[in-house]
Amino acid sequence: MAQKYTTREEDYSKWYNELVYRADLAEHSDVRGCMVIKPYGYAIWEMMKEVLDKKFKETGHSNAYFPLLIPKSYLSKEASHIEGFAKECAVVTHYRLKNAEDGSGVIVDPTAKLEEELIIRPTSETIIWNSYRNWIQSYRDLPILINQWANVVRWEMRTRLFLRTTEFLWQEGHTAHATKQEAISEAELMLDVYAEFAENYMAMPVIKGRKSASERFAGAEDTLCIESMMQDGKALQAGTSHFLGQNFAKAFDVKFADKDGKVEHVWATSWGVSTRLMGALIMTHSDDEGLVLPPALAPIQVVAVPIHKTDEELEAINQKMAELGLKLKAKGISFKYDNDENRRPGWKFAEYEAKGVPIRIAMGPRDLESGNVEVARRDTKTKEVVEFATIENYIEKLLAEIQKNLFERAKAFRKDNMQNVDSYDDFKAQIDKGGFFLAHWDGTAETEAKIKEETQATIRCIAIDQPEEAGFCMVTGKPSNKRVVLAKAY
Amino acid sequence: MAQKYTTREEDYSKWYNELVYRADLAEHSDVRGCMVIKPYGYAIWEMMKEVLDKKFKETGHSNAYFPLLIPKSYLSKEASHIEGFAKECAVVTHYRLKNAEDGSGVIVDPTAKLEEELIIRPTSETIIWNSYRNWIQSYRDLPILINQWANVVRWEMRTRLFLRTTEFLWQEGHTAHATKQEAISEAELMLDVYAEFAENYMAMPVIKGRKSASERFAGAEDTLCIESMMQDGKALQAGTSHFLGQNFAKAFDVKFADKDGKVEHVWATSWGVSTRLMGALIMTHSDDEGLVLPPALAPIQVVAVPIHKTDEELEAINQKMAELGLKLKAKGISFKYDNDENRRPGWKFAEYEAKGVPIRIAMGPRDLESGNVEVARRDTKTKEVVEFATIENYIEKLLAEIQKNLFERAKAFRKDNMQNVDSYDDFKAQIDKGGFFLAHWDGTAETEAKIKEETQATIRCIAIDQPEEAGFCMVTGKPSNKRVVLAKAY
Repeated sequence: MAQKYTTREEDYSKWYNELVYRADLAEHSDVRGCMVIKPYGYAIWEMMKEVLDKKFKETGHSNAYFPLLIPKSYLSKEASHIEGFAKECAVVTHYRLKNAEDGSGVIVDPTAKLEEELIIRPTSETIIWNSYRNWIQSYRDLPILINQWANVVRWEMRTRLFLRTTEFLWQEGHTAHATKQEAISEAELMLDVYAEFAENYMAMPVIKGRKSASERFAGAEDTLCIESMMQDGKALQAGTSHFLGQNFAKAFDVKFADKDGKVEHVWATSWGVSTRLMGALIMTHSDDEGLVLPPALAPIQVVAVPIHKTDEELEAINQKMAELGLKLKAKGISFKYDNDENRRPGWKFAEYEAKGVPIRIAMGPRDLESGNVEVARRDTKTKEVVEFATIENYIEKLLAEIQKNLFERAKAFRKDNMQNVDSYDDFKAQIDKGGFFLAHWDGTAETEAKIKEETQATIRCIAIDQPEEAGFCMVTGKPSNKRVVLAKAY
Repeated sequence: MAQKYTTREEDYSKWYNELVYRADLAEHSDVRGCMVIKPYGYAIWEMMKEVLDKKFKETGHSNAYFPLLIPKSYLSKEASHIEGFAKECAVVTHYRLKNAEDGSGVIVDPTAKLEEELIIRPTSETIIWNSYRNWIQSYRDLPILINQWANVVRWEMRTRLFLRTTEFLWQEGHTAHATKQEAISEAELMLDVYAEFAENYMAMPVIKGRKSASERFAGAEDTLCIESMMQDGKALQAGTSHFLGQNFAKAFDVKFADKDGKVEHVWATSWGVSTRLMGALIMTHSDDEGLVLPPALAPIQVVAVPIHKTDEELEAINQKMAELGLKLKAKGISFKYDNDENRRPGWKFAEYEAKGVPIRIAMGPRDLESGNVEVARRDTKTKEVVEFATIENYIEKLLAEIQKNLFERAKAFRKDNMQNVDSYDDFKAQIDKGGFFLAHWDGTAETEAKIKEETQATIRCIAIDQPEEAGFCMVTGKPSNKRVVLAKAY
């Protein structure tokens, strides 16, 4: 219990890593870059999945499942896709092991070599569009609105729990449309779904925007994104939605006949969010005492701890808490009563604080007498004494208030750390302290590359709701009609 | 529409393959042995997952996620495990591709060779027990009750959609316990969960039993299973639950201190069901017209088709069906109204029959006048005219009746195709017609191997509720105290 944890101030990156372990969310495995998602972390991911899955279905999508393994040749079919993606990936070359002749264990059987190597999917556009070719003949077969929940592997050199791992879990939507406009609308719709999820469930404010050409997904004609600000002022790309044009349809020869019998290539989108959202959730709200969870994504919304000396007292508190459990259940509020005798209340307080449980209730003998109870908020770390008789109503309101407060707090933080900047010198002087900078940019890849090289900051996006404004590129002085968002990023 | 489909009688295996395509459940991919699960098939799997996941959680389990890739050396740690499993598997040897120098595409980068090859998990005991070593120190850390929903890869030579595929989806439970008895009880509990799911949701009767030593899971001390009978009389193992003893704890050095400080190895179970259940569901109930689904696992429980000549008629039917939709929704019954003008009613009837929708409603102008509607059952292919005003109650009862009827029908079929047999000659004469045979067996692996070699039948299980009965092995004449279940199997 006396363990001293690193604070955000001391070392933000170390604070993050410690927190993931402390809150029992995930851990490194022995397999390079791959993590184990522990039950508590996975429970949060499951809640995210459930909400998103419902939203996907409400917007007309169905789930399906495509193979994990992709023939190597598929990856080369869309030229820019292979450039951006397929290089750092896990390659399956053999399909059998055999006993080593010296009895030392098993070795790869050299006679079981695949004719064509298989790649563990880094993303599934190629294998899916190869299937769509057979599914689509006529406009009647369109649109196809499919999502897949899956694991993917990208061989990352530097990994961090949730934020960048070799294997990660995600969903990838892959849709096919008869018209360009319909595909563009789909990409926009899914961006809205992501933004709405981020803000209303994760309590994480996001900027909806469009990537510059050089930051686009490999194979996309347009990449939309949501960008959020972490507490160290760095940006995190929390989700992307791509308009793929006819690139994959052309690469995989997917055509349809329209109502007049004219044959054309199909239009496509893809969109995804991943377990990276866990990292975003952690870094948006948590503090030096541990995880802070928005109630909408908390596996345990309310925890109660008895504080007693005698068995009689415990028995009386147990009874009250059983009552409370029923009342909260009726309101759909998740509740845990922890009367484990092996742990002291102080240990439990620290534990549930570290795990980010939004509301903690403590009840002792004096509370029993007075008919009150102590209620502690995780977000503000304030406590109040509340009448027990109607506490379920108080809790219901408090959960909504915490959800709102976290969002407002994160929004205020972002506001405080976002500024216009007009001179490149100013920008360079300030970029290391973190935050988002709104600056004019001349729209060229050269200037973008120069900024990145000289400052490690990138154009996060061209925000969709950024107003037009005449100005001059902070680097080259060339004219610009809109500010873009710049930041260092995860 | 004039396509002629193969009947079960003509060619059971071909009937199955055609049905999977016809009902739009899944298809072969270009990747050897890997399937694409299409949206309708995946929707059924999702319903299975949802029910099972709820049962796992109700029995105290949490979900987690462990890496897809397993270091080769892990597989050798448990000696019998590697013998039974790890040979036919996908081996990752490299982590990068590069452009071919001749511009012909991408090739594996020979400089990116892994020091130790990684295996795509065929099952996760090894990687999970390697983690458990760090999670378990004391009896306070036990039990660990974890489940994982995942994809696994086993390099199968002969594959069939859902029944045996190189990649498949499944859940694998992995639990750790302080005592042998607790682990045995866990394995039994999960077998009951599976059996209850199979019978009450899949409407598929199962025999709960124990595998003979030679049919055990590689690394298990005891393998429990549920066995079901398909319509061709063959057996299908639908789920297994293993008592692993201390084998994996010993292989991965997982020990705990009990209350008295005594250090001992941990006891384990693992249990799983897979997308193979989809094959079992299909082959238990379906007929020559297509899939037959039990209402409890039907993505669409009721479909309605308008039969009209004029737009006015359609408009009036649309209105009635909107009403019905609301009424059924209130009862939690899933309903689809298909008034697509591009398809004729006859086409739709065949389509929803092929897809196994339990109840089909047809409404025409005469029904509008009479206040009645035609209701067709998929299971019995009978129709009835029913009063529209209270039809939601009729439908609710009918769904329950269909669920029950499918189970009873499958039970009756199994009864008709299960018999005692006391002579090996009789057995050999009859085994090719299919069905389950209850016979005395002397308990030796030699006799078991002889039966398998001479008849291709296997001991499916020693049924748990099979009464003791003195008898003589049908092959060797040696004494036996219980009949075992023999059959050819998938």
